[in-house]
Amino acid sequence: MTTHQPLAVGLVGAGRMGSFHAETLAHRLPGVRLAAVADPAPGAARHLADRLDCPTAYTEIGELFADSEVDAVVIATPARTHADLVEAAARAGKAVYCEKPMAVTLAEADRAIVAAAGAGVPLQVGFNRRYDTGFRAAHEKVAAGAIGTPQLLRSLTRDPKLADPARVPPWTIFLETLIHDFDTLRYLNPGAEPVDAFAWADALVRPDFKERGLLDTAVVTIRFDNGALATAEANFQAVYGYDVRGEVFGSAGMLTMGDIRRTHLTAYGAAGIGAECVAYDQDLFHDAYVAELADFADSVRTARAPSVTGEDARAALTIALAAIRSVQKEAPVRIEDVKDEAA
Amino acid sequence: MTTHQPLAVGLVGAGRMGSFHAETLAHRLPGVRLAAVADPAPGAARHLADRLDCPTAYTEIGELFADSEVDAVVIATPARTHADLVEAAARAGKAVYCEKPMAVTLAEADRAIVAAAGAGVPLQVGFNRRYDTGFRAAHEKVAAGAIGTPQLLRSLTRDPKLADPARVPPWTIFLETLIHDFDTLRYLNPGAEPVDAFAWADALVRPDFKERGLLDTAVVTIRFDNGALATAEANFQAVYGYDVRGEVFGSAGMLTMGDIRRTHLTAYGAAGIGAECVAYDQDLFHDAYVAELADFADSVRTARAPSVTGEDARAALTIALAAIRSVQKEAPVRIEDVKDEAA
Amino acid sequence: MTTHQPLAVGLVGAGRMGSFHAETLAHRLPGVRLAAVADPAPGAARHLADRLDCPTAYTEIGELFADSEVDAVVIATPARTHADLVEAAARAGKAVYCEKPMAVTLAEADRAIVAAAGAGVPLQVGFNRRYDTGFRAAHEKVAAGAIGTPQLLRSLTRDPKLADPARVPPWTIFLETLIHDFDTLRYLNPGAEPVDAFAWADALVRPDFKERGLLDTAVVTIRFDNGALATAEANFQAVYGYDVRGEVFGSAGMLTMGDIRRTHLTAYGAAGIGAECVAYDQDLFHDAYVAELADFADSVRTARAPSVTGEDARAALTIALAAIRSVQKEAPVRIEDVKDEAA
Amino acid sequence: MTTHQPLAVGLVGAGRMGSFHAETLAHRLPGVRLAAVADPAPGAARHLADRLDCPTAYTEIGELFADSEVDAVVIATPARTHADLVEAAARAGKAVYCEKPMAVTLAEADRAIVAAAGAGVPLQVGFNRRYDTGFRAAHEKVAAGAIGTPQLLRSLTRDPKLADPARVPPWTIFLETLIHDFDTLRYLNPGAEPVDAFAWADALVRPDFKERGLLDTAVVTIRFDNGALATAEANFQAVYGYDVRGEVFGSAGMLTMGDIRRTHLTAYGAAGIGAECVAYDQDLFHDAYVAELADFADSVRTARAPSVTGEDARAALTIALAAIRSVQKEAPVRIEDVKDEAA
Repeated sequence: MTTHQPLAVGLVGAGRMGSFHAETLAHRLPGVRLAAVADPAPGAARHLADRLDCPTAYTEIGELFADSEVDAVVIATPARTHADLVEAAARAGKAVYCEKPMAVTLAEADRAIVAAAGAGVPLQVGFNRRYDTGFRAAHEKVAAGAIGTPQLLRSLTRDPKLADPARVPPWTIFLETLIHDFDTLRYLNPGAEPVDAFAWADALVRPDFKERGLLDTAVVTIRFDNGALATAEANFQAVYGYDVRGEVFGSAGMLTMGDIRRTHLTAYGAAGIGAECVAYDQDLFHDAYVAELADFADSVRTARAPSVTGEDARAALTIALAAIRSVQKEAPVRIEDVKDEAA
Repeated sequence: MTTHQPLAVGLVGAGRMGSFHAETLAHRLPGVRLAAVADPAPGAARHLADRLDCPTAYTEIGELFADSEVDAVVIATPARTHADLVEAAARAGKAVYCEKPMAVTLAEADRAIVAAAGAGVPLQVGFNRRYDTGFRAAHEKVAAGAIGTPQLLRSLTRDPKLADPARVPPWTIFLETLIHDFDTLRYLNPGAEPVDAFAWADALVRPDFKERGLLDTAVVTIRFDNGALATAEANFQAVYGYDVRGEVFGSAGMLTMGDIRRTHLTAYGAAGIGAECVAYDQDLFHDAYVAELADFADSVRTARAPSVTGEDARAALTIALAAIRSVQKEAPVRIEDVKDEAA
Repeated sequence: MTTHQPLAVGLVGAGRMGSFHAETLAHRLPGVRLAAVADPAPGAARHLADRLDCPTAYTEIGELFADSEVDAVVIATPARTHADLVEAAARAGKAVYCEKPMAVTLAEADRAIVAAAGAGVPLQVGFNRRYDTGFRAAHEKVAAGAIGTPQLLRSLTRDPKLADPARVPPWTIFLETLIHDFDTLRYLNPGAEPVDAFAWADALVRPDFKERGLLDTAVVTIRFDNGALATAEANFQAVYGYDVRGEVFGSAGMLTMGDIRRTHLTAYGAAGIGAECVAYDQDLFHDAYVAELADFADSVRTARAPSVTGEDARAALTIALAAIRSVQKEAPVRIEDVKDEAA
Repeated sequence: MTTHQPLAVGLVGAGRMGSFHAETLAHRLPGVRLAAVADPAPGAARHLADRLDCPTAYTEIGELFADSEVDAVVIATPARTHADLVEAAARAGKAVYCEKPMAVTLAEADRAIVAAAGAGVPLQVGFNRRYDTGFRAAHEKVAAGAIGTPQLLRSLTRDPKLADPARVPPWTIFLETLIHDFDTLRYLNPGAEPVDAFAWADALVRPDFKERGLLDTAVVTIRFDNGALATAEANFQAVYGYDVRGEVFGSAGMLTMGDIRRTHLTAYGAAGIGAECVAYDQDLFHDAYVAELADFADSVRTARAPSVTGEDARAALTIALAAIRSVQKEAPVRIEDVKDEAA
């Protein structure tokens, strides 16, 4: 591909996240163009494509995969469809960027990884926090030894609003929310891998949905093979906004990350000091979302390995599955056991 | 007691914390005087007493309890001696302030509580964070409903330096360090009580002392009867200073506490932004240490119940014992089971 | 112009700021394309155009103005050429965005304003801080009365490095640096206008260049017609980075703006707490630079008045000229007198 | 004086600040006792003395000076009485601590200095910010060269409430409020002295009192003999609390000081992030007020020179007088001219 031929990317899934990615592909990435949009919902792909001056829209996702104009795809459909779509896209020879979680079972994850490897296409997963400047700088400092050996870690995600508890699939808090934190903890403890996990979860935001299986609050403790003890924490309704923070403490220091201030404005009034919080992930991680697609495009163009791989997605999934089993058993669970069983 | 008759307080234990309390009693509390110091170490009591213009020094602690000049005692000896000394002081009719932990077994705790109740003397325990303005304001806000129902809590303690790992008794991290955090979590979740605990601990600061039983790093997860999930975390060597923080997240907001900046000076240089950290607990909690003794003196003078009771000490101890058993069993432990067994 | 016809923008001046704007025009703005680049320096326009897949490059700026493909121009040449280029562009019927300062004399400023008005083209000036989310939120809060009547204001600019003092034209600190702060002070005190100014300036960074007329440090005090007293402060070498802050204090509260942290990462080590600073204006104001061109493009497309006008540029220039005269006279200067003289 | 003989201090002026100092003398300083209180208001001295178990109360201030039991005096009367009382106390052979401002004319200041020198008694002035840990650490860092040569400084004072504008004497904002900032600027620019000052002041909080001479808002710019340009700023009504901050920028970095948070508690709710501010100077500078009296007592006991001298008071007063004259003349004023005229 020459410099003057932009990378043609097809977007699969025209929902909230897909639309954001589509805009990035259409307008924010040099050398990239949004070539097609696919979404099974009637009119959804067409509507988004029109808004972004994108020539092609499909309601059949397979048609997008078959479109020879398309070099690479971005998958932003509901979580449970990801792995199959990764497989299909890889088989069609497309470079694949897949939103997190790439899979919700290890078998699926393995199939997706094998499919991409077999087809020789790059596969990148949407752990966007790795592209946030603060989390990234922390990772680099830890990797460079700035805080010595990690001993205690923390990562948390609190979503701003639980709008529709009836539509939250079981175990979502582990498979879709904490999956970010599991990846972040691995990212902040480079070279180490998790050994055990213990989890508690409950429906505290909406206890009236507990019997339907809703879990909206969870705490997971993880022991890594370098001895580090980590905590991951999630909740579906932080009334103050979208709260994502990290902390890594080691033998030579500590790093903290996360800033939920919407701007750098601070107000002082009769009621004291005040500042506004960010309300949405797309505000907090706007630049990170753009940076991850830019990195994906770059890896495709330069034929280098992607920075966040299917194996990373599988590793985070393994922790999520261990946490789920820990909740079920009310006991700590060895990561290895999860691996074995799923194999 | 009239206003003009100062409360005569005897200090038991002339070590680091005892000396600090002695200075407070001698100089910082209106209506209070340091009447006597006792310490079995030869010359220790005399030396401290002389420095503070205190008339009386004992090497026999029993003599201080028998001293009719003494209205109240402050016990600041090694942890494992506390309960017996509380009992003895109470029997001698002295009002008792005891450093944390008040006891290291439930049987001891019960004896101390019974002794004080039987003698009709007040018994206050040194959970100083309850007197820190930030933690106190947080407690009051939670109690007033400012953040709705607590759902997630965190309390951590990181000491600045593990000077002599060979001298750390087994389970110290739970019984003497995290005991603060267990109390803080109860304080920040007022009205709720712990139901289960799960703990992991390791020797990460000094792995060479692990086989001697050293545990210098620990993470404890606690489930409360109002559903709240709490994390307590400790480490014996934070190279940046003395780090104590708290967080309570609820249905209507979040509160965070803890500030390890030594002063409000911020420096900006070629290396970036910098500030100094506090190095010692007596810097960080200076005012809280004074405030807790002032409150104790006030409760004695006004014959009201102390603010932090033997029952509070027992409740925190119960969590510590559950955490210890959890480490031993590698499983979560019900608080109630600890209670039953110890009863 | 239909939605599908992108706005064709020509960039004049392929230097540091011009290159940044060119990239924005080429890649970051939906509905906008970089149509041509002009720069008299041999090869400069061509080089930048090639890098950005822009079809056309000129070494004759007049040719760009004559290019009928070009709808609008962005002027990013040296300050002293701005006004003439605005005039020429306006006469050629192009919508004009001009970097600050739009002019360095009032006569020039008036000619530029008249030319744009006469040609009926929009004229926007590059006061980028108005597009920074923090400064903008502050402006809106003040305008909404959130802090009552402004009484004390502060705006400061400290550049990170004075690389080549020999190449700094006289009065640059007022005409090119503090011009931002003069505009910010007007922006944070909406509806009010300056009445008097008093200034001191010196060569403190490079005293060895003082006799050649270098002024690298300045403090200006301004009195507004609503009574508010404002301070503007600049320095050409802040070793810690690029420092831009604002403060507005009023009868009902205070707002502070400005954040020089490069990321939200905080590091704690044996030397204390640390964070990195931003090094360049293009880091600190990246999003603001993009937002101002987006707003310009939008105003052109929708044929509405630009948000930051030639009159705003003239008002800030008037303060700069009053400050210069104040330094010369060693006395406060009435803004009105500057106006009269220049007229 | 032996260690066991406490320093007997007499308090002159039983108002708000005097009462605070009296409590410090009575209860917070080892080796110091409150020996007497004097206040001309009927009952005021008696009331305060009784509350603090102080044996002696006078309504005649001269009687306290004549009391041979009294070693040292703390003067906390209205500002305009200070210099005469310093003189009288010095003549009576007492060590003297005087609240700021020590004098409101240079002639008075000189008389007070001469009286103390003639009597061979120490004279310390209440510039309490020099005892605040943040401002002190800043001073020490500047003196140690940590930020190179100071180039830009800022000090500000905003009082929380202008309760009774009718009772504010003319020029109070310069003589009693900004006097702190003038001293702070000298303290943060050690070794340098002011050369010129320019000031603007107005009645913005209570314009209805302007014709009676009220000035409640002021900005002063000062040029130092090392080239540094400084700004001092004051206002009598900051609705958010008591706001005192400092900043010193130099060739090798910057230091900022000042923290108006009441505690380290931060609250996050639906309205965003919030924290409480300090409401009173006695909260913000509690420890500094105690530390300055402790330092005074120590200097008396050890017969060393006080840390903040009559000369420091005179130097700050000179800036205040220059600022006042600058407001009157609407022009910058040379400090030297103020000195000459007053001599």
